[in-house]
Amino acid sequence: MSGLTKTTEKKLIIVSGRAHPDLAEQVAAGIGTSLVPTAAYDFANSEIYVRYEESVRGCDAFVIQSHTASVNNWIMEQLIMVDALKRASAKRITVVTPFYGYARQDKKSRGREPISARLMADLFKTAGADRLMALDLHTDQIQGFFDGPVDHLQALPILADYVSGKYGDRELAVVSPDAGRIKVAESWSKRLGGVPLAFIHKTRDVTQPNKSVANRVIGQVRGRLCILVDDMIDSGGTICNAADALMNDGAAGVVIAATHPIFSGPAIERMRDSVASEVIVTDTLPVPADKQFDKLTVLSIAPLLSQAIREVFEDGSVTSMFDGQS
Amino acid sequence: MSGLTKTTEKKLIIVSGRAHPDLAEQVAAGIGTSLVPTAAYDFANSEIYVRYEESVRGCDAFVIQSHTASVNNWIMEQLIMVDALKRASAKRITVVTPFYGYARQDKKSRGREPISARLMADLFKTAGADRLMALDLHTDQIQGFFDGPVDHLQALPILADYVSGKYGDRELAVVSPDAGRIKVAESWSKRLGGVPLAFIHKTRDVTQPNKSVANRVIGQVRGRLCILVDDMIDSGGTICNAADALMNDGAAGVVIAATHPIFSGPAIERMRDSVASEVIVTDTLPVPADKQFDKLTVLSIAPLLSQAIREVFEDGSVTSMFDGQS
Amino acid sequence: MSGLTKTTEKKLIIVSGRAHPDLAEQVAAGIGTSLVPTAAYDFANSEIYVRYEESVRGCDAFVIQSHTASVNNWIMEQLIMVDALKRASAKRITVVTPFYGYARQDKKSRGREPISARLMADLFKTAGADRLMALDLHTDQIQGFFDGPVDHLQALPILADYVSGKYGDRELAVVSPDAGRIKVAESWSKRLGGVPLAFIHKTRDVTQPNKSVANRVIGQVRGRLCILVDDMIDSGGTICNAADALMNDGAAGVVIAATHPIFSGPAIERMRDSVASEVIVTDTLPVPADKQFDKLTVLSIAPLLSQAIREVFEDGSVTSMFDGQS
Amino acid sequence: MSGLTKTTEKKLIIVSGRAHPDLAEQVAAGIGTSLVPTAAYDFANSEIYVRYEESVRGCDAFVIQSHTASVNNWIMEQLIMVDALKRASAKRITVVTPFYGYARQDKKSRGREPISARLMADLFKTAGADRLMALDLHTDQIQGFFDGPVDHLQALPILADYVSGKYGDRELAVVSPDAGRIKVAESWSKRLGGVPLAFIHKTRDVTQPNKSVANRVIGQVRGRLCILVDDMIDSGGTICNAADALMNDGAAGVVIAATHPIFSGPAIERMRDSVASEVIVTDTLPVPADKQFDKLTVLSIAPLLSQAIREVFEDGSVTSMFDGQS
Amino acid sequence: MSGLTKTTEKKLIIVSGRAHPDLAEQVAAGIGTSLVPTAAYDFANSEIYVRYEESVRGCDAFVIQSHTASVNNWIMEQLIMVDALKRASAKRITVVTPFYGYARQDKKSRGREPISARLMADLFKTAGADRLMALDLHTDQIQGFFDGPVDHLQALPILADYVSGKYGDRELAVVSPDAGRIKVAESWSKRLGGVPLAFIHKTRDVTQPNKSVANRVIGQVRGRLCILVDDMIDSGGTICNAADALMNDGAAGVVIAATHPIFSGPAIERMRDSVASEVIVTDTLPVPADKQFDKLTVLSIAPLLSQAIREVFEDGSVTSMFDGQS
Amino acid sequence: MSGLTKTTEKKLIIVSGRAHPDLAEQVAAGIGTSLVPTAAYDFANSEIYVRYEESVRGCDAFVIQSHTASVNNWIMEQLIMVDALKRASAKRITVVTPFYGYARQDKKSRGREPISARLMADLFKTAGADRLMALDLHTDQIQGFFDGPVDHLQALPILADYVSGKYGDRELAVVSPDAGRIKVAESWSKRLGGVPLAFIHKTRDVTQPNKSVANRVIGQVRGRLCILVDDMIDSGGTICNAADALMNDGAAGVVIAATHPIFSGPAIERMRDSVASEVIVTDTLPVPADKQFDKLTVLSIAPLLSQAIREVFEDGSVTSMFDGQS
Repeated sequence: MSGLTKTTEKKLIIVSGRAHPDLAEQVAAGIGTSLVPTAAYDFANSEIYVRYEESVRGCDAFVIQSHTASVNNWIMEQLIMVDALKRASAKRITVVTPFYGYARQDKKSRGREPISARLMADLFKTAGADRLMALDLHTDQIQGFFDGPVDHLQALPILADYVSGKYGDRELAVVSPDAGRIKVAESWSKRLGGVPLAFIHKTRDVTQPNKSVANRVIGQVRGRLCILVDDMIDSGGTICNAADALMNDGAAGVVIAATHPIFSGPAIERMRDSVASEVIVTDTLPVPADKQFDKLTVLSIAPLLSQAIREVFEDGSVTSMFDGQS
Repeated sequence: MSGLTKTTEKKLIIVSGRAHPDLAEQVAAGIGTSLVPTAAYDFANSEIYVRYEESVRGCDAFVIQSHTASVNNWIMEQLIMVDALKRASAKRITVVTPFYGYARQDKKSRGREPISARLMADLFKTAGADRLMALDLHTDQIQGFFDGPVDHLQALPILADYVSGKYGDRELAVVSPDAGRIKVAESWSKRLGGVPLAFIHKTRDVTQPNKSVANRVIGQVRGRLCILVDDMIDSGGTICNAADALMNDGAAGVVIAATHPIFSGPAIERMRDSVASEVIVTDTLPVPADKQFDKLTVLSIAPLLSQAIREVFEDGSVTSMFDGQS
Repeated sequence: MSGLTKTTEKKLIIVSGRAHPDLAEQVAAGIGTSLVPTAAYDFANSEIYVRYEESVRGCDAFVIQSHTASVNNWIMEQLIMVDALKRASAKRITVVTPFYGYARQDKKSRGREPISARLMADLFKTAGADRLMALDLHTDQIQGFFDGPVDHLQALPILADYVSGKYGDRELAVVSPDAGRIKVAESWSKRLGGVPLAFIHKTRDVTQPNKSVANRVIGQVRGRLCILVDDMIDSGGTICNAADALMNDGAAGVVIAATHPIFSGPAIERMRDSVASEVIVTDTLPVPADKQFDKLTVLSIAPLLSQAIREVFEDGSVTSMFDGQS
Repeated sequence: MSGLTKTTEKKLIIVSGRAHPDLAEQVAAGIGTSLVPTAAYDFANSEIYVRYEESVRGCDAFVIQSHTASVNNWIMEQLIMVDALKRASAKRITVVTPFYGYARQDKKSRGREPISARLMADLFKTAGADRLMALDLHTDQIQGFFDGPVDHLQALPILADYVSGKYGDRELAVVSPDAGRIKVAESWSKRLGGVPLAFIHKTRDVTQPNKSVANRVIGQVRGRLCILVDDMIDSGGTICNAADALMNDGAAGVVIAATHPIFSGPAIERMRDSVASEVIVTDTLPVPADKQFDKLTVLSIAPLLSQAIREVFEDGSVTSMFDGQS
Repeated sequence: MSGLTKTTEKKLIIVSGRAHPDLAEQVAAGIGTSLVPTAAYDFANSEIYVRYEESVRGCDAFVIQSHTASVNNWIMEQLIMVDALKRASAKRITVVTPFYGYARQDKKSRGREPISARLMADLFKTAGADRLMALDLHTDQIQGFFDGPVDHLQALPILADYVSGKYGDRELAVVSPDAGRIKVAESWSKRLGGVPLAFIHKTRDVTQPNKSVANRVIGQVRGRLCILVDDMIDSGGTICNAADALMNDGAAGVVIAATHPIFSGPAIERMRDSVASEVIVTDTLPVPADKQFDKLTVLSIAPLLSQAIREVFEDGSVTSMFDGQS
Repeated sequence: MSGLTKTTEKKLIIVSGRAHPDLAEQVAAGIGTSLVPTAAYDFANSEIYVRYEESVRGCDAFVIQSHTASVNNWIMEQLIMVDALKRASAKRITVVTPFYGYARQDKKSRGREPISARLMADLFKTAGADRLMALDLHTDQIQGFFDGPVDHLQALPILADYVSGKYGDRELAVVSPDAGRIKVAESWSKRLGGVPLAFIHKTRDVTQPNKSVANRVIGQVRGRLCILVDDMIDSGGTICNAADALMNDGAAGVVIAATHPIFSGPAIERMRDSVASEVIVTDTLPVPADKQFDKLTVLSIAPLLSQAIREVFEDGSVTSMFDGQS
């Protein structure tokens, strides 16, 4: 019989783009390894160059990039990194997006709009991604945008356990800042042992056209500490207005909790000045020193990512990490 | 110069599966044509056979099939019809699904589940569909499951105008039977001129594990005629229980409105016996005589489909059919 | 050097749809394992739900489903099972179809027909199947419909050895009930040591238009025990008429042998009342108790499937299972 | 409204490879045009170069190449021609293969064989072909190998009408030289008004292993003029041996009819020296002067191709060209 | 016969991203139309939003975007624009890139690099582009990176005719600043009637490792006005050093000519201070007022693009625009 | 837990087409194995048949074929070999082309030409190739034509080390026979320690139109031994004329070195009679005895291919084989 035979070994590697290297380093450390040394820089005209400085042939590669601003640069860098891995004969490529850019463009609200969240999934597939790992996607349906396996992780246990530990003895309510996000609040309510639920309904004041939006609280919040929950905080307007509405409705206090700290434009100022007593987020996106403020708490997401990557590499179960919840 | 030149003509044809031929015939009539004569039957072992009895070469074909039970037969028939059109040189194939089967399986709620709504979109693409036309998809994100243009129509204007005409002088509230469907209720509220909004929050009674679910009304419904809205009525349990909860909370009455009359199992009995005074649906799915009952109103969806197909064929605008709403 | 290294293990799993679970269980047992526990049921409106109750990550999965009636349900279930495996990160997915539905729609006999056998192959590919294992496909060309490896097994050794053991001392002829299926009869003839060959030629009686078809026996069958062979028995009309024609032509007796017992409509009655003394099939499709009758012999196909799956898993040779015949 | 509007014209062009330019010229002439001037030659190292000398932008292009020896050169030339059309913005590309090479490799007869007929279909698709037009494919299933529309033409009317006109007053039988090709003979029998059918069964002489094959005639041919039919004549051995067997069985004469005159190796000599009184073929493949012989009749296939191409271009019906037979 | 028939009209539209709207407006005006009104802006977190404000259904759309810095933003915007066109049922989509970003990353110079120029072509294809129109691609092979028609335009006639008109009476030499770009210089030499050719050979000074690169002129330039030609000027270092080397070698003067004015970093300063007496470019990329300087000449590329788009829309010939040169 | 577990083994096999079996055998021997026994022959009508005579299931297969004349036959054979491997369940398929056919057709020089080098890459992908290994591709960009990993090997170290060993003490110049190939000469110059560079510029004599091409030497070659380098020698005209021009310009001698010995038509005669004192090539293409001549030196490429294949199989690094040069 012709041919040569050899026992197969598989090798896990972690590579990271330049968007949020701290997180990637912690994830690698949590698995007991370090990032693959990678040359990455911008050419004079802003084109990106990437090259791995160690062989990646035959590897099971995880490419971590968090889509912080400027989103398009970091997505493009990640696409180019995937291309380079594919052409260098990596065996399997998993795109890891702690925060998945363009997730809010997940449908056509009006005719002639793009569905950019689907487009991004297709771009990653085209570049060579076999798998996707993401955390708290804006809508669960985005899992279905990618043509392949998606490991969809949840920060809820981390956030809710923190809230539970700190405020568990208070009378709580879970509030969604938006009618369309109540499902998230329902999960929180369940995790916190069945606390009451409310949401903010935005209505236009018919008597004052083109002018203002009233925030009506739907549900009972009087006398309760309201945990105002969402998947992300972008410019912070919606959630801070929601906090005001809750206080106006007699809430005993407001704590804001969200997975993704986008913190664009006036977000920091708004949150610092808001009625909320604490803002709790994870570090799926970088929160540089100048964006930190007193009542901000940042919980580390790295252990969760490390564990999930290890399960994927070792053919374990990611589902079981969430108590049968995902 | 070699070659033969000819002015191009395009030809619209409508073909229909066997699931809901009445609707397809009305759609064709509304456009001023008739369905392409088609042989379709089941072989002894339940395999489906289809053949078109007129040439379809070069046509702009619309394949209408509504995914009523048994859903798998009708989806497979539609796939086979698309394959036959493709192989017979149809120029463009639009799959028209007044009700899109498997729409509720649009994400993985738990690990190791399929995303069947995406799978169906891919199956239609594989069979040869270039485009998709659907009505009130369970979630808007399903538009993004199909790799190509999707014309997403809305029954809301038809349903809401009927409600407005009949109940417009009453004090109304719009109610969602489920936290996850409040966005639909918000559209209704807006269309009805800003009437108040409420939803039903299902909570497990912690003191009686494994037993019952309490329906809590969140929002103010006392003294109001509640329009309980959803995209579909399947076995009717959720929506009839919601109606009960509303009456218990002091509602002045309940009217149920939904686009898709699936009406499975005990649905008819439940609705007939429910506290709702009227149940309003469209005919996206067939409602045979034995499923009709006194307080049921069925509005025709055919004119909407006719108009949309004509716009698509004539390169008009489907967007403009919905006052800038889609 | 960064990264973690690990010896690769591969894991074989067998999952089964609900069409013919007995066969799948026997196949799994023959390999020394059991089926992966799987939740599968129909929703009220007949949509199918499937979920695996154990991790399938990284597995070499074989998805067994036999396309018995209602064919479309079982094909759709198998497609959904493949989708769920793909999204749950199974490493390799082999669709196993002991009987492959729509195999007879393998060409356009007339214009504007589908080629459903090709369509099914494409649907499985789209859902995520990497490979296909099938048994006695209606035509060998169907192997070429699937874009990937096809393990095409044969029941001939099982059937022919049984016939040889029981009737080997008689003067035999092998007969095809149809001109287009003589190749199958030739394989039988060769396997049985070169016994004579005949076939039934259907001719329309020109003098009685639109009325009847005469079955003419072409070849010498007088005084011989005729083994009437085919790949499947559907409603049984063709093969029972063929048996009559053979007896009319002086055959000493008729034994019917076929791989796939579809047994639709009047098949049981026809075979029971036919001139054939024995009907031999395999259990590629379920033959429930009420379809069994005295002269029916059902041979088990499970050992063959077990062996083939094991060869595929262990990178052995399926070809060598058939003495160089496949 | 922005934009420029213009009535669409479509333009038919015919381009031809170098395998059988006479046929292509006749086809073009039959449509009332001429071939697009094309530069095509071999480089010193046998690579092929092709360039169109007129614009083909926006055209409906038909690329005619008959796969005569050396088959691989002509297939490659046709692939390159399709690529050049695609890159030059032809609107639609139909590959026309009067004889489709590798058609006999349409299945795996043994393990580890290719399925080259499927491969060729995929290669054409990859190069850019939208459609395929072929004539008397070796098996009908090859239609299903191409992922797109296939116009499958038949030479039977041309051949059978010639036979009918010349020999219609004789007592005929239609004979297949091979068990696997009887379906073709059945079509002939039907077309000729129901004449009797026979076939040649090749059996190995068990007493003389590894040596000879006996040709047994199955069916009644005594005293009849046998029309020995097949789709192609390659090296002519099978069909000439069949003719001998028929004469030995008392046939009154033998006429050979086949669509594709491959005529490899000793074919000419064998046919010239055979017992057949006439050999009738079409010109799907070139029959150069030195391959012509007295009893050979070559019927022109060009009018059929011209008509089919015109129907395709004008969105007419190819199906109707064959009296509902295809 | 069922169905509706209508003469087909086609409609050309031009849409433009935000990178270089002036050029797009001139191109549209040159065709006699205006750009489709388009809403495009950045969200707070830098994600891009795009929506067309007129129907684009059935249109032949040309999407113009020049990949100026920041390249990744503008490429992503163009991808999103293509996605929106595809989902809005545009009939055909041509991506127009006057300057194609990442063109210099067209191969792996070292292992584990990406081939970003191919990746970009694939991304456009995935988003929905049917065709590509580009101008003076960095290497001609990039045409082969796109899986579809590429209209590759040349600025050479515009640039060379200007040079010829202004300097035609001088003794000229054409010089390439780099060994790898001599083919471009050869085309110039030919266009200018056969003037002599030279190139700059960069050699490392072996005696001073890691330090400097000497520019050696290869070819005769003494006493001649050197036209130093390239496809692009990025940071300007190479080309200004080349100009110095030419003067050192006795050139009578240096004129720089290039298609794409990238003008990154110190480019303006370098060119202003260089020995070259004139720098000639086109406006494929925007040259804002603050980047203009006395000896810079910018020639308009818009008429060329207008003409090419019109030829494509009208199924004319782009090839013939370049005198048989492309 | 259900399922069977097993340590994974991987198996390397080498298969070879019939174009250049000697090279393949040496490559296999260099790895310590032998070629998989393979049946391959031509049918009477020139169609190719291939079958592997050992199981290839689960193997890591390398398919070696050098595209010598007749190129189309050998490419088609390789495509068919890949198809057979794919359908026989090989795990990974690497196409090895020591010389890659059609590499010179890597762009459209004029409109309506194919880009055959891209087409070949796509054909291999379609047939089932996962990876490509090639040697000294005509242009580096061809790496980007294949949608997957390409291992691009270089013969430069082998050729240059031979030249260095034999002629290292002479005063050398490296000369490119064509302006477009100077990059290759630059690599040589660098490898040989920075020797001077020149190239041949072909110019048409303007005074004698349509007649002759003058070869002008650009660069200093007087008194130097010129190493005239190229990637291939086809019919030898260009390179022998270049040698003449060098001698006319005062070169001390000429040695020709190229990777690929195509040696078409008059090549042998030309080289034998040329002014060059030695012609050095590798054996990427077969050089049969009748093409060998006194001053020809053929260096073996097999060790390089063996080493590269072993690195690929063992997940080592191919990049490191070239001192960081690829």
